[in-house]
Parts: sequence; structure tokens; C-alpha cells
Amino acid sequence: MKLFVWTLTLTSLAMAQKPLTLASQGSFFVGGESKTLPSVAGRGGFGTGEITINQMYVQYQIPMNGAQHVPVVMVHGCCLSSKTWETTPDGRMGWNEYFVRKDRPVYLADQSSRARSGFDPSTLNAVKAGTMPPSQLPNVLAASHQTAWTVFRFGPKFGEPFPDGQFPIEAVDELYKQMIPDLNSTLPNPNPTLKNMAALAVKLNGAVLMGHSESGFFPEQAALVDPTGIKGLISIEMPCPELKPAEIATIAKIPTLVMFGDHLGDVQGGPANWASSLESCNKFVQQVKDKGGDAEMMYLPKMGIKGNSHMLMQDRNSDQLADLILTWIDGHVEKKKAR
Amino acid sequence: MKLFVWTLTLTSLAMAQKPLTLASQGSFFVGGESKTLPSVAGRGGFGTGEITINQMYVQYQIPMNGAQHVPVVMVHGCCLSSKTWETTPDGRMGWNEYFVRKDRPVYLADQSSRARSGFDPSTLNAVKAGTMPPSQLPNVLAASHQTAWTVFRFGPKFGEPFPDGQFPIEAVDELYKQMIPDLNSTLPNPNPTLKNMAALAVKLNGAVLMGHSESGFFPEQAALVDPTGIKGLISIEMPCPELKPAEIATIAKIPTLVMFGDHLGDVQGGPANWASSLESCNKFVQQVKDKGGDAEMMYLPKMGIKGNSHMLMQDRNSDQLADLILTWIDGHVEKKKAR
Repeated sequence: MKLFVWTLTLTSLAMAQKPLTLASQGSFFVGGESKTLPSVAGRGGFGTGEITINQMYVQYQIPMNGAQHVPVVMVHGCCLSSKTWETTPDGRMGWNEYFVRKDRPVYLADQSSRARSGFDPSTLNAVKAGTMPPSQLPNVLAASHQTAWTVFRFGPKFGEPFPDGQFPIEAVDELYKQMIPDLNSTLPNPNPTLKNMAALAVKLNGAVLMGHSESGFFPEQAALVDPTGIKGLISIEMPCPELKPAEIATIAKIPTLVMFGDHLGDVQGGPANWASSLESCNKFVQQVKDKGGDAEMMYLPKMGIKGNSHMLMQDRNSDQLADLILTWIDGHVEKKKAR
Repeated sequence: MKLFVWTLTLTSLAMAQKPLTLASQGSFFVGGESKTLPSVAGRGGFGTGEITINQMYVQYQIPMNGAQHVPVVMVHGCCLSSKTWETTPDGRMGWNEYFVRKDRPVYLADQSSRARSGFDPSTLNAVKAGTMPPSQLPNVLAASHQTAWTVFRFGPKFGEPFPDGQFPIEAVDELYKQMIPDLNSTLPNPNPTLKNMAALAVKLNGAVLMGHSESGFFPEQAALVDPTGIKGLISIEMPCPELKPAEIATIAKIPTLVMFGDHLGDVQGGPANWASSLESCNKFVQQVKDKGGDAEMMYLPKMGIKGNSHMLMQDRNSDQLADLILTWIDGHVEKKKAR
């Protein structure tokens, strides 16, 4: 096992030394609605009128052989941005580039209300102006270092890493810099990111949607909004909600992969209960299978892959996990022979 | 003139059809400090502890011949993110890729407190929890469509474009999607983006810093923090503050370019006064020259280039303006013959 991982790491490092050739790259927005700003004083003369909210920023790269493969859309989790998928905290290649180097068109989306997608500041301005009570302010999720350590399962308690942990804990400060306030509580219900993801898949004439943690079940929820463009669902580490039979039937038409790391029950406290999340997703996968769907649970320790954290796209064996996903896409979405 | 612009446009479109080969790419953070979160209830069980604030997210691409050129750092303006420099609202290549295709290593920075750099949510949480009065909430700058139209000089008043305007006004809705709330008022003084830009230039062993609008004078201010790594200053459309003689002397050691577009006095209302901004920068450029510095004002209409908006990196003639900057870098920073 050790030797196997070592070989993969060498391969990845060698890859990073080689030039990367792109057919094209760029960025654009999906969705967005106009909203009239209430007249509020004290905003530096920026006046009133309309602003655009709920739009989703998307950054993409298309490799030279990209047309031969289904695009992959990656959506980050709570208190994070698309940085999740880029250069890892310890400076290795992120999944965004790794997938591109494996000939996949890659689309990184900042969730609506996060990072380059912006957010609706109306409530904030109104409370400051005294026209709304402070209780109406959005609930901002700002995960502390202490919370991240256990929720992301770097170790059993803050400052103590798991001996076999795959997260590059020496670079944890770089992960902390990625953690930014989460303003999803400012969003309408349903979350516009869902329809934006579905619309993006349509725009791309077919895409695999991948979510993580807070967005882990967004691919499935996007499929329930509009499955037209969605060719595959990849869900990484989240609770799986109870779905109605008709909803399961919709999901069952799309190949579905769920992935969980290690040490699910080995951390103390925090808002997440990963062991029960796995349990709920095992049930979800079984329900999809029972409806005749192609669903697979990759519970990594059960496959002999140990020590993975919640941030498994940043773990030391991130290339190995990417390869598992690429092979799954080939076999289940693109219906090619195993690579 | 018309023919000249047309030829350049053809060149740019042809360029976009060609593959782009990179030596490397990635992202990282500069700066960032730990801050202890006050204990506040109602944050979804995310607990207390420390968060990281004031960090600056940087995304980079190095072309194959990048080592032959000084890197260029691009920093966006108010109510915007690094999206400013990417694919234009009407879908043309942004300066980020154009500069890379001209062999320049390019670094895009999201200002501290904006987009992927995150922001300090402490005050927001404290006001919501009732431990701080609403008056302490940050002043959020959210520029409306109406404000953008005149401040960015798309036309004399909202809905009415300049007949000779270079901004791709048919795609203005895409620009509105780029406009996100500006939380710079949450930052300490001095703005940590300044030291982060200076530190980035040192990290890169020398860089040209480019700012726009709100960040237009950040390159100069970064040089006043630490000029060590700063090889050139490019300031686009901002007021130039009054500097002390010793400060002018520091700036005078670094080649400096200032650029302004057209119609500076032709818009009604709004918080900006572009005509007086030009005046203040003409004075600044003269002061730097008087100290023996290499400073240049490119006031585009005076050079026969008409109709440019405040968002000149997104204007129809953005390639032509990029070429002016690249030629200036060659001649003044890299001391090469004119291209």
C-alpha cells in the first residue's frame, strides 16, 4: 500500500513539471436576478437602484482533448470557496488541474452568496440604517480553526492529529486562510445555487456535478430541479436527506457516486456527525439501487484506503482519490472500459 | 485609426483560437493574521476559537517564456473581484490571459476582505447577538446598476450610452453580475492589502503592481510600505492623494504609469469626480518627474484613443490598451527596445 501511494505521488509530481496546454479557459456567471435596493443613507454616495444577486461565478479550463470527455463541475463546501479544488495547502496540484491534465473540461463554481459570486447586503444595510432589527441580520458561519480541526477530522481534538491522517497537517494554516464567512443564510429558499448548477449542466450540453460537504448533496438537489444536463452525480461527505420515492426515481436515472473518508466517529464535538452521515448515505445509495439506479458508495477505509480527512481533495493521497473518481466517470458515465 | 483597431481585434480573436501552454499555474495566500472570535451564541454550533483574517488570495499562471519577463500583479477595484481581469462581459479574452499569452507571469489578487480572500465577520455576529449596537456594522458598498452606469462612465445618465463608448454595453448585465459587496470598511488601517501586495512582490523576486479605481493607488501605497520587490507601478483611474516629498522620492525610484480613459467630465452625479482625479494624478506624475523619476500619464483621448470607460480592461479596445501597457513595461521596467 505504502509503495502504491508513493508511486502515485511521484507520478503527480512529474506531471506538475510538464507544461499544461489548454484549448481555452475563462469565466462567466450563471443565473442572477435584479433586486431593488431599499433607499438607505450612509452608503458612501453609492445611491439607490438595482443590484444583481444570486448569480454563480464559474471559472473553467478546457484541455486539448476535452471534447472527448464529459465536463466536471466542482462545487465547494461551507466556509470555503473554489480554492478548495486548487493548489493544496502543502502546495501540490489540486483536483482542478489534475482533472484537466486527465483531459476533463473542469468548471469551478463559487456558490451563490460566496466569494466571487457576491451576496445580498440588503439586510446588513437596513439594520445599520435602523430600519430593521439586529435579529434580522444573517447568521454568518465562520468556522474557527478549532472547529475545522475536528469537523474536518484532522485529529480527535484540536492540535492533535491522527497518527495515520492523510491531511498535510504541517500546512494547516494555509487551509485556515481558505476558510471564509458563509452567508448562505442570506439566500432565498430553495438555494439558487441548485438551479444555477442545473442550468450550468444544460449550458454545457451535459456535465458531471460534484459537491462536497455543505454542497455534497447539491448535485442530487440540482437534478431534482432539472436533470436534463446532468450526466453524473458525485457527492463527497455530507448527510443524505430522506427523499420521496419519485425523487429517488429521478436520481436513479443518473449514475451516482458517494465518497466518504476515514475516522468518521473518531472526533469529539462539533456540528457534524459523520458516522450518521455515512449511515444516511448508505441508505440513499441502497434506495437508488432498489429503483434500478447505478449508485456506488466508496467508503474509503472499507476499500483499504486509510486516514482520509473531510478535505480529502487536499489529502496527501488526493491524486489516488481523483483517479478513483476518474475511473468511476469513465466506467459509469462515459461507459468506457476501466482505465 | 479604425483600421488599426480592427487589425488588433482580429489578432486577439485569432489568438483565442490557439492553444495556451502554461509552465505552471496555481493559487496561494499572502498575509493573514489570527483573531480570537468573541463567544457568540447562535452560530449553528460552529463554536468559538480563532479565525484567520486579512489574508489575500492570489491566483497565478506562468507562461512557458515567463522567466524572461517581470511578473504582473493585477488588483481589482471597488465592488469587484479578480473577475475584472478575466473574460470580458461580451466574452472576449481578459487581460489576465492576454498578458500570459504575451509571455508575462500574471498574478490576480482578490483584495483582503473581498471574494476568495474572505472578511472579518466579528462585528456582524456581535451586532446580531446584541453585544454591539447596529451603528457598529460595517458600511457595505454595494454599487447599483444605476451608480455603475455613470461612475464607470458607460454614458451620461443611466440607460443612455455614449455614442462613441468603448464599453460593450450590450453585455452590461454581465458586468453587473461581477459587482459584489465591498467590505473594505471592516479592514484595519492601514489596509492590509497594501502590505500583502508589497510582500507578494518580494515573494516573486520582483513584480509590476497594477491597480484600478479603488485599488488604483495601491501600487504606490504598497511601495511606501516596502519598495523592495516592486519593479513598476501601474495605476488606472483613481484620485491621486497628496504625498509628502519623502514619499514622492520613494516612488521616483520606480517606473510609474498612470492611465485614464475618456468622458471624464461627461457623467452626471455619483461619488466619483474623474476630471479632478485626472488633475490630481497629473500633479502626482509631475511631482515624481520633478524628483527625477520615470513617470508617465497616458490620458487616452489625448493620445487619440477615444470613448474608453472606467472599465477599460473590458472595453472593446482592451487589447490595444494592454499593448500600450506591455510596451511601457518593456521600455521602462525591462528596458527593452519598443516592441
